[in-house]
Amino acid sequence: MKCSAFIATSLDGFIADSKGSIAWLEKANASLPAGEDCGYRSFLSSIDVIVMGRKTFEQVMTFSEWPYSDMPVVVVSRTLRSLPKTTPATVTLKNADPIAIVSYLQDRGYKSAYIDGGKLIQSFLSAGLINEMTITLIPVVLGGGTSLFGALERPIWVTLEDSKAYPFGFVQNRFRVSASEYPR
Amino acid sequence: MKCSAFIATSLDGFIADSKGSIAWLEKANASLPAGEDCGYRSFLSSIDVIVMGRKTFEQVMTFSEWPYSDMPVVVVSRTLRSLPKTTPATVTLKNADPIAIVSYLQDRGYKSAYIDGGKLIQSFLSAGLINEMTITLIPVVLGGGTSLFGALERPIWVTLEDSKAYPFGFVQNRFRVSASEYPR
Repeated sequence: MKCSAFIATSLDGFIADSKGSIAWLEKANASLPAGEDCGYRSFLSSIDVIVMGRKTFEQVMTFSEWPYSDMPVVVVSRTLRSLPKTTPATVTLKNADPIAIVSYLQDRGYKSAYIDGGKLIQSFLSAGLINEMTITLIPVVLGGGTSLFGALERPIWVTLEDSKAYPFGFVQNRFRVSASEYPR
Repeated sequence: MKCSAFIATSLDGFIADSKGSIAWLEKANASLPAGEDCGYRSFLSSIDVIVMGRKTFEQVMTFSEWPYSDMPVVVVSRTLRSLPKTTPATVTLKNADPIAIVSYLQDRGYKSAYIDGGKLIQSFLSAGLINEMTITLIPVVLGGGTSLFGALERPIWVTLEDSKAYPFGFVQNRFRVSASEYPR
C-alpha cells in the first residue's frame, strides 16, 4: 500500500513552534484567497484511511468540527488506553509499530494511507514506509519548535515529482521516496 | 547596503551533515548537467564583496583553486588571529559583530554583500541584517547535521520573490526579508 505525508513546515523545518502551537500556520492560512486549500481536499480524496499520532489527534479533537467526515482514522499511541467518548465511531486506537500498522491496514483492504503528525511521519520514514511526501513551505523562519524530520541511520534521497509556488508565497513540493533509498 | 545569503540545504534544513561534510551536496551537484550552476555565477556578478565565517573560509582554502577571482573577501572570526600565508591578497580578516561589519563595508563603498556560512548567516539574520536569501533545497533528508537556521527571539516572516524547480530535482527559492519583520 501507499503511505503519504501531507504537511506544512516553516523554512527552518518546524511543524509547530517552540510552544507546540500552530498559530503561525493558522495566521499564514488566514491570508489565503477564499477556498484555497493548497490541494488538501484533492489529497484527501486520493486516500482511504488516515493514520495519526496522539498529539495530532488531540489537536484535531479541539477543532469545532471533525474534519474527516466518514473517513476511517487510526490513532497510533503507546500511551493512550482509550479514546474520549466524544470521538467519532470512525476512529480506531492502535498501539503498534509502523510495520504492524501497515500490515493491519493492508489486511483491511486499504490502499492509500495519509500519515499525519511529526513523530509518526518520522517513525514511518525510519521504517522505510513513507512513499510520498507533500511538504508545503510557509515563508517564515520560526527559530525553534518541533521538527518535521528526526534522526536517521543514513540519508534518504528522494525524487521531486512536483513543485508549485503559490502567489501568496507558499511553495509546495511533492517528493517520491523510493524503496531502494531506504536503509535496509 | 544589501546583504544576501545564497546557500543549499537538505530537506531537513542542514548545510553540512553530522560530520561537518558537504560530500552529499557535492554528490548532488555531480549529477547536474554540464555548466549548470543554479544561478551561482549570476548571483556572484550581482555582489561586490563576500563576507564569510571561519569554517567556510577554511573549507574554501582546501579547494584546489581559489573560486572568487579578484572579489574582495572578508573573513569574520572571533578566534582566528591571522590568515594563512597562502591566502590571496583580496582577503581581509575581521573580528567584529554583524553591525560593525556592515558599517565597515559601507565605509568602503560596498553596496551588495554575499554573506556565507551557517553561523554568520544566523548572526546577520538575528541582527536584522539579511535582506535576501536564496535557498536551494536538495532532495535529500540527511537526518542530522549543521542547521542553516538557529534560534530567534521571534519568528521572521519573509516574502517569496522567486521559486524555480530544476528538472534534476533541486528547488531554489528566493526570499526578501523586510526590515519591518525584524525583532527590533
